[in-house]
Amino acid sequence: MRCFWDERQRAHDPAHEFFNGALHPAADVPGRIDSILAALPPTEAPDRRSAEELRAAMRLAHDGEYLDLLACAHDEWLAEGRTGDVLPYAFPVQRRPLDLQRIDARVGAYAYDTCAPIAAGTWGALEAGTDTLLAALDAVQGGEHAFALTRPPGHHAGAAFMGGYSYVNWAAVAALASGRQTAILDLDYHHGNGTQDIVVWHEGVRFASLHADPRTDYPFFWGHAEESGGNVLNLPLPRGTGVAAYDAALAQACEWLGEDAPDLLVVSFGADTFEGDPISHFAIRTGDYAKLGRRCAALGLPTLVVLEGGYAVDALGHNVAGFLSGF
Amino acid sequence: MRCFWDERQRAHDPAHEFFNGALHPAADVPGRIDSILAALPPTEAPDRRSAEELRAAMRLAHDGEYLDLLACAHDEWLAEGRTGDVLPYAFPVQRRPLDLQRIDARVGAYAYDTCAPIAAGTWGALEAGTDTLLAALDAVQGGEHAFALTRPPGHHAGAAFMGGYSYVNWAAVAALASGRQTAILDLDYHHGNGTQDIVVWHEGVRFASLHADPRTDYPFFWGHAEESGGNVLNLPLPRGTGVAAYDAALAQACEWLGEDAPDLLVVSFGADTFEGDPISHFAIRTGDYAKLGRRCAALGLPTLVVLEGGYAVDALGHNVAGFLSGF
Repeated sequence: MRCFWDERQRAHDPAHEFFNGALHPAADVPGRIDSILAALPPTEAPDRRSAEELRAAMRLAHDGEYLDLLACAHDEWLAEGRTGDVLPYAFPVQRRPLDLQRIDARVGAYAYDTCAPIAAGTWGALEAGTDTLLAALDAVQGGEHAFALTRPPGHHAGAAFMGGYSYVNWAAVAALASGRQTAILDLDYHHGNGTQDIVVWHEGVRFASLHADPRTDYPFFWGHAEESGGNVLNLPLPRGTGVAAYDAALAQACEWLGEDAPDLLVVSFGADTFEGDPISHFAIRTGDYAKLGRRCAALGLPTLVVLEGGYAVDALGHNVAGFLSGF
Repeated sequence: MRCFWDERQRAHDPAHEFFNGALHPAADVPGRIDSILAALPPTEAPDRRSAEELRAAMRLAHDGEYLDLLACAHDEWLAEGRTGDVLPYAFPVQRRPLDLQRIDARVGAYAYDTCAPIAAGTWGALEAGTDTLLAALDAVQGGEHAFALTRPPGHHAGAAFMGGYSYVNWAAVAALASGRQTAILDLDYHHGNGTQDIVVWHEGVRFASLHADPRTDYPFFWGHAEESGGNVLNLPLPRGTGVAAYDAALAQACEWLGEDAPDLLVVSFGADTFEGDPISHFAIRTGDYAKLGRRCAALGLPTLVVLEGGYAVDALGHNVAGFLSGF
């Protein structure tokens, strides 16, 4: 398993997010990276592509004006006399094209929560993350397995919305850039609502997600049990789910993904299914992740693993390395 | 002009709202009431109606499940182990019926911003406010003018959403409860998006709003210049608008409202058009409000004035009293 990472991705370092009635320190801290790097073999730095190439890749999955906003939002925020990170606070009930000038309006129009702060270094980190992703995809296109240490996460970012620590949807960009029949398997604790938003109805992509039941867990408004059909399979699981039930659902997802004769597997891997995760409620143990990796590897496909969540920083590296060891 | 107020409305006393990237002390403070009471003649306390009667009135404008949530949200919040006021943080991109259990999900599904905190006393204050409103409406139905000191405000509350310090839409409830051809005139600094949401396409109601241009001002996603037609007239005005331009737009709105031969005028009056308002940017002076009141009175209709915004607490009473003196 080749592993890719670009140090420039560290530039994304927001201070706070707003949820449950209060500002909290950001859970997606750069320290997550160190935990993973310490547990992996040496990573490869990607070649640097031009801004135009990176944007063209992002555009496969995202609206152009949304990307424009990501690139300039923090500068506009500072120009308004604000400090700190950009956070939206008002959100349209119906989304439609509007001529909006104020940064609060524009960022709210392209977000669905108050948990995707845009910091000074966010856009640069997203460009670097795209370099990392595309380098890893190249390796997979060459027939190898690869892990892209994508941080910030991506699977809550839709075609034209950010949320849940996510801005650019790595799994969707990779699937659509590959030009191949792709199976996307989302193994984060939270539903991959952004990925579903982008790939639903997309010929050539199947999307399966195992996640905490959205009746009780973020992102709430997507990923319900009845929300399956076509190229989407959602398997919500109750809080407290341990490895046996999780693995059974994973087997079901893998069987369904395999029915479409995919050429490529993209795994959105979040280690927030871990029993010690501070914001999640499943009961997977560090020793279980290798088995889950083997289950995915049994599909027999060239596989790109991208990183989503996982906030138990000390255990994160071992959990990621355990999953990758299954391949 | 008879004035109605119920002391039980003071029970709504939220601590904070979240906007522009930070938690701020709530702008809709109970002190607003004292400023107004000091400037008005003695107010009348409404008769108390049963909870069923109050709910039936609210139901004319609002979704039943939305009202259920308003009534129980703070209790559920405490039951989750939270403290303080309920504030949402995640909002659906598409609104659809979902089985949601967690309070954060349910409140986000019925809100569009982080500026309508539900405090312990909010529901009781809304019931009392409905008593106040209906008593004032009774006076108007009898041929008098009346002012309902409705706090919290209402005009940002839609059929199934709260936002902008608003929970129950007083103007819409009054219009729909009156059973008469009603002209609603919204003179708050901010667009009356909730009122528009409720009464658009409603036969028997015309809605005109003068407000700051939503390209630059809250609520951003409604009230744009091109968003007029049918029974809705939106007249956005630039920041800095003074009384001359404001009065000209008011004359246009009154003429348009009069074309429908209304039997009743409901004015959503906000004094946040005042030059000294801390969160707004128009330049109306205290001495101007009587003239604006006279302009409205010239429609020659029984008139119910309900209170919306106005956050320059010291001047608020004089501004409200000035407007009412025009009748």
